[in-house]
Amino acid sequence: MTTGMTIEVWVEFASTYSHIAAQRIEKEAEKAGISIVWRPFLLGPIFQLQGLNDSPFNVNKLKGVYMWRDMERQCKSFNIPFRKPSVFPRNSLTAARIATAAEGESWQSAFIREAFLANFYLDQDIADPQVLTEALKRAECPDIEKAIGSAQDQATKNKLRETNDEAISRGIFGAPNFIVGDELFWGNDRLEQAIAFAADEK
Amino acid sequence: MTTGMTIEVWVEFASTYSHIAAQRIEKEAEKAGISIVWRPFLLGPIFQLQGLNDSPFNVNKLKGVYMWRDMERQCKSFNIPFRKPSVFPRNSLTAARIATAAEGESWQSAFIREAFLANFYLDQDIADPQVLTEALKRAECPDIEKAIGSAQDQATKNKLRETNDEAISRGIFGAPNFIVGDELFWGNDRLEQAIAFAADEK
Repeated sequence: MTTGMTIEVWVEFASTYSHIAAQRIEKEAEKAGISIVWRPFLLGPIFQLQGLNDSPFNVNKLKGVYMWRDMERQCKSFNIPFRKPSVFPRNSLTAARIATAAEGESWQSAFIREAFLANFYLDQDIADPQVLTEALKRAECPDIEKAIGSAQDQATKNKLRETNDEAISRGIFGAPNFIVGDELFWGNDRLEQAIAFAADEK
Repeated sequence: MTTGMTIEVWVEFASTYSHIAAQRIEKEAEKAGISIVWRPFLLGPIFQLQGLNDSPFNVNKLKGVYMWRDMERQCKSFNIPFRKPSVFPRNSLTAARIATAAEGESWQSAFIREAFLANFYLDQDIADPQVLTEALKRAECPDIEKAIGSAQDQATKNKLRETNDEAISRGIFGAPNFIVGDELFWGNDRLEQAIAFAADEK
């Protein structure tokens, strides 16, 4: 049962809490009869506008220490596979492009989940085409070569750039985000509230 | 029923989400049979160590815009009185000192709640002794003059400074915080998890 209202799910493959949201959102949205639209995007350009050249969790070391402990606790409580990656943040450009080009494909959701698991559970470099190939395989993508190649299409590059421009124009400053109509919800902690809001608007 | 395990509740009177936590914590802790200890502290010196001379919500304007919208939604969902203050952040030094000196007093909790309501509901300047006098009155403090005067005692000043040193040594970088043993929980969003953790440790 999926009707009218839609939640846009803005995720960044380098973002820790996006991992949790990406693993949780489909089941929670389905329970509420809400459909989702993935909006993969990049935080790098947004952090640069904030004057940052690194993740805020690396810039603010205490916040970083806390975040990793919180991730452990949160993933455990949601039963989500997690291992602290040996590199953070990882280059997420190619993964974001593949996910962008996969809009409308049956395997898009599965690929998104698998790419996050590669980064935050398997501790793999998600910029490596071999790692992405394996994630696509686990997602049962029927034409992996085409999916990998889509990351180099000019149309894909333009679309991701437009998505990022839209993120900026909509006031996004971090990840993950849930957008319902004009209402912005930031952080995995607001997933339930975003769904309840969408259900009320139906 | 209140036994063994205790939650330290670290609040800053200038902090928006500390307002929500301060209004909620007692009832939630009591339900779980957990006792609380208030640890009023100041974020200013901690933000300065991070290289900030203002609230992160003012430094990062988009995050600030979002925070005020989120506060509206959160306070509504928890049924907590809230009005966006005309000044943010407010000077919280005197309020923190009074709350510090009130440790062990029957009216400490009520004063803490009332000082937050003054800032984030009545839109009053909590650095003004008259505003603090009214908050103490609402909290049924039996000796208001003494309470106001305690803010100028050297012992109070020293105690608050020690609390702040402890905040830094324990890895605190924001507010509110809940500490159970050595486990740090940051943000009103972790209140329930902190209580559950304390209940498990009992």
